[in-house]
Amino acid sequence: MVIGKVIGNLWATRKDEKLHGLKLLVVQHTDLQEQLKSSYVVAVDAVGAGVGDLVMVTTGSSARQSELTAGKPVDAVISGIIDRIDVGQ
Amino acid sequence: MVIGKVIGNLWATRKDEKLHGLKLLVVQHTDLQEQLKSSYVVAVDAVGAGVGDLVMVTTGSSARQSELTAGKPVDAVISGIIDRIDVGQ
Amino acid sequence: MVIGKVIGNLWATRKDEKLHGLKLLVVQHTDLQEQLKSSYVVAVDAVGAGVGDLVMVTTGSSARQSELTAGKPVDAVISGIIDRIDVGQ
Amino acid sequence: MVIGKVIGNLWATRKDEKLHGLKLLVVQHTDLQEQLKSSYVVAVDAVGAGVGDLVMVTTGSSARQSELTAGKPVDAVISGIIDRIDVGQ
Amino acid sequence: MVIGKVIGNLWATRKDEKLHGLKLLVVQHTDLQEQLKSSYVVAVDAVGAGVGDLVMVTTGSSARQSELTAGKPVDAVISGIIDRIDVGQ
Repeated sequence: MVIGKVIGNLWATRKDEKLHGLKLLVVQHTDLQEQLKSSYVVAVDAVGAGVGDLVMVTTGSSARQSELTAGKPVDAVISGIIDRIDVGQ
Repeated sequence: MVIGKVIGNLWATRKDEKLHGLKLLVVQHTDLQEQLKSSYVVAVDAVGAGVGDLVMVTTGSSARQSELTAGKPVDAVISGIIDRIDVGQ
Repeated sequence: MVIGKVIGNLWATRKDEKLHGLKLLVVQHTDLQEQLKSSYVVAVDAVGAGVGDLVMVTTGSSARQSELTAGKPVDAVISGIIDRIDVGQ
Repeated sequence: MVIGKVIGNLWATRKDEKLHGLKLLVVQHTDLQEQLKSSYVVAVDAVGAGVGDLVMVTTGSSARQSELTAGKPVDAVISGIIDRIDVGQ
Repeated sequence: MVIGKVIGNLWATRKDEKLHGLKLLVVQHTDLQEQLKSSYVVAVDAVGAGVGDLVMVTTGSSARQSELTAGKPVDAVISGIIDRIDVGQ
């Protein structure tokens, strides 16, 4: 899984019908010091995340293993809101 | 999912038979300020997108979860036309 | 899918038995101006492509959705020979 | 599979319910001289790894082939603790 | 598939039980002139490859399509030993 910060929302009225009702969030990747990197991903929210949260994103076919995303054209899902990262010096 | 702008069409007369009837679009990736990046992807259109649209592209096995692409050799599908991206400052 | 130019052949006598009989081609990626990039991929030919052809390559599990590659250890298949790319200026 | 060093732990109270009970470790990628690279991945521990261990990480759908991770939104699993890498000069 | 040179072995006593009995090789990626690149992958050997061999590596879920790797946490398998690459000038 990758780590990122939720920085915004994305709206798409015309979309695959299986995506209706899913919340789409823009997640900017962060490094281990929680600094924003230039890359980002659009992910479905499965845990009630919001702007400003540091989150864990599951990608690929594994993104369809949450109850919310099963069988849907989703390749990235927010699978956890991070409380703490402890990387020793 | 990734974000990009539809910049053109692609034609292939000789192709895998499962691809017949699918519209192939060239999508150039964009950054969060909607500026074009150098990378791109060829994606099947599942939502009626056209040149100039800002779109959301689902990749990998998840690209086969739309009705149009199920069971086909497709690794990228346009799954939504983006109305608005709201990334706070 | 990605775009590339077929630049050669690859032979492997000792290989997974499921790969026997498949034609392996070396495809060098191209940018949108059809200029060769430094990256490349070895892909199974599913459409009768040959050296010099501009092709579309499907990767990942979707590469196993052609009749020729189903159930085989193939992660890239040539799924179309490109006639024309029309990316407007 | 990729090689990395376990450098820390990650806690997420709010997460996909299928992730409950799994240990999440931060693994920083290493090069062939076991030097840390800047990239990293969050992986589920399936082998009892701890901080400081050099490990092998399996990614993508294959990360769901361990008993611990089957059917869960996990795209990276620590599948082995490395005793020795022997790359001849 | 990607091309690389087998440069060594990797041992892991503690590993996912499904990996027992599989030979793990370190494969360094090569460019089209067979020069070593800095990137590498750890792959399961399915064809009897050894140090010094130029090989073809299948990645992702397709790496589980060989008899040896089916249902196992393996995301890269050596699927062929390359005899010759013929990329015309």
